[in-house]
Amino acid sequence: MPTLRKPYVIFLADVTLASDAKTGFGLRDWCGPDVIGECRLPQGTVSLGLPALRPQEAAVAGAGSLVIGVAVVGGQLPHAWLPPLVEALDHGLDVVSGMHTRLASFPELVKAAARGGGRLVDVRATDRVLPTGTGIKRPGKRVLTVGTDCALGKKYTALALTRALHAAGARATFRATGQTGIMIAGKGIAVDAVVADFVAGAAELLSPANDPDHWDVIEGQGALFHPAYAGVTLGLIHGSQPDAIVLCHDPSRQTIEDYPHVPLPSLGAAIDRYLESAQLTNPDVRCAGIAINSSSLDEPEWLAYQSRLAAEFDRPVCDPMRTGVDAIVQQLLQPRRPRPQ
Amino acid sequence: MPTLRKPYVIFLADVTLASDAKTGFGLRDWCGPDVIGECRLPQGTVSLGLPALRPQEAAVAGAGSLVIGVAVVGGQLPHAWLPPLVEALDHGLDVVSGMHTRLASFPELVKAAARGGGRLVDVRATDRVLPTGTGIKRPGKRVLTVGTDCALGKKYTALALTRALHAAGARATFRATGQTGIMIAGKGIAVDAVVADFVAGAAELLSPANDPDHWDVIEGQGALFHPAYAGVTLGLIHGSQPDAIVLCHDPSRQTIEDYPHVPLPSLGAAIDRYLESAQLTNPDVRCAGIAINSSSLDEPEWLAYQSRLAAEFDRPVCDPMRTGVDAIVQQLLQPRRPRPQ
Repeated sequence: MPTLRKPYVIFLADVTLASDAKTGFGLRDWCGPDVIGECRLPQGTVSLGLPALRPQEAAVAGAGSLVIGVAVVGGQLPHAWLPPLVEALDHGLDVVSGMHTRLASFPELVKAAARGGGRLVDVRATDRVLPTGTGIKRPGKRVLTVGTDCALGKKYTALALTRALHAAGARATFRATGQTGIMIAGKGIAVDAVVADFVAGAAELLSPANDPDHWDVIEGQGALFHPAYAGVTLGLIHGSQPDAIVLCHDPSRQTIEDYPHVPLPSLGAAIDRYLESAQLTNPDVRCAGIAINSSSLDEPEWLAYQSRLAAEFDRPVCDPMRTGVDAIVQQLLQPRRPRPQ
Repeated sequence: MPTLRKPYVIFLADVTLASDAKTGFGLRDWCGPDVIGECRLPQGTVSLGLPALRPQEAAVAGAGSLVIGVAVVGGQLPHAWLPPLVEALDHGLDVVSGMHTRLASFPELVKAAARGGGRLVDVRATDRVLPTGTGIKRPGKRVLTVGTDCALGKKYTALALTRALHAAGARATFRATGQTGIMIAGKGIAVDAVVADFVAGAAELLSPANDPDHWDVIEGQGALFHPAYAGVTLGLIHGSQPDAIVLCHDPSRQTIEDYPHVPLPSLGAAIDRYLESAQLTNPDVRCAGIAINSSSLDEPEWLAYQSRLAAEFDRPVCDPMRTGVDAIVQQLLQPRRPRPQ
């Protein structure tokens, strides 16, 4: 995965539902200064509220890449989207995609890239040779977001933690493990697309040795309680060797999303299992807090839920969107009590 | 992964150490009736004690495939090995390899395959589209071999269990998850070479719904306590949804092989963690026994060790090579006590 060329122009294609443009909104919200405009097909109605730029105009304005900021069911790239991508490549932009279809599978795009000199970048592709994990402890601090399920705020929480660490004067780097995160960071490894033997090694590569007071904030993937993806999660935990985990949870879920036969674990069980797993490569790991996606709760419900959890677990309980994550960051930056022998 | 064409002629190349021909010995020992001979380069000195056949002679004798039965450091296929492979292909044999280098990366082999009509089969390659795991319980019984570490007898134990189940009159199928296992079974999926998101799905595909009294005996991979490969193991556990696990262990190991900084878990901790993990997709899972690789112990040491473990864990303790695994099979075939509520 090469480093992405910023700034970006976001391609919103022909989507008509904001929820199909989550990647675009994420880029606007988390790397806004790197996004100079948006571009869509005539049928598209979703806007990020950014200047509308044709690919050629974006090139003139200094864009480095046109980034596909939408997702469609199945992850296939429709042929109707090709003309603006060709235009971008013809004007020297890179085209960046998180879709399943490889960009290079379209001869039109390969030819345009050759003409204009831009690159076709599939952020899900991991063509580089990866090492296997070593399990050897490396310097620097690491915090990993983990969850009771997939798709409940692990990326958002990691980005919020990075921002709050910076605001608190700490040195911190967001480490991306999924496609949108990679586009935001400009680099990273899509760990779920890595060959299984190399997941822990990829995680080690992603958060290399660093200064003792530097924090890598690693975007979690999957969940240990997910019948399809738990292996990805475990490899990411072992390779990240986190000093701290932050547990993400959505109280409106009773079962794993799309797996109604698989109940969610209790928060206590989840914390125990994550710490137990992480201890293999970092015996000092602790849980620094709980990040709740409380969009299903009104304010009184949230406050009651928050105090109940804070009392039960004696750890900061935040909703990154409602309260920010400063309380968790305080916990991360607190000098560590010596481990009981 | 296509089904392999038996019978085999085993290619032993130029190796001079029996330990480099472990795959060849495994094939001889576990699918002997499917192996009609061996073939080596003039410099090679290792023999399986089978008739020496040139590839052309093997073809005349009815072989379906020439199987590379040796491994070399790094997993690269040396150019010096190509002539007999070309000869095999020219006479219509398939060539089967578990090396990292893809056979199709050698133009000589591609051309010879086109001439002779044979196939180039890389058993580590998983080009087929795999599903993600569903976690939905399927009929049929499954037993999975698991370990305190890698490379201590999980494949051997699974093969021995399959044989002993057959001898006890049970219906059972060995399900291969690694390269040698796949060559023995003639089919399977190398789960460590699967993209991480699909490991559990691959394991579901590998041991599909079956008759209620049929046993799939699934070859384990990796170890939950391995800093590089635990994710593969967890995905395999969840997809296999085993009714029983058999824990494999080598008492001469104190630390994970090649990871002197990572201690082995205790047997009790290992059983607990494996059962805890497996309960996600099969709450009724139990540990049916312990399979010891006791090659480091003399007979009195083994007997003392065996009785100590049997007393401590109240489960059959076997060494597949020393004692066979009938005691574990008896445990598997016993009607299950109802689960305590």
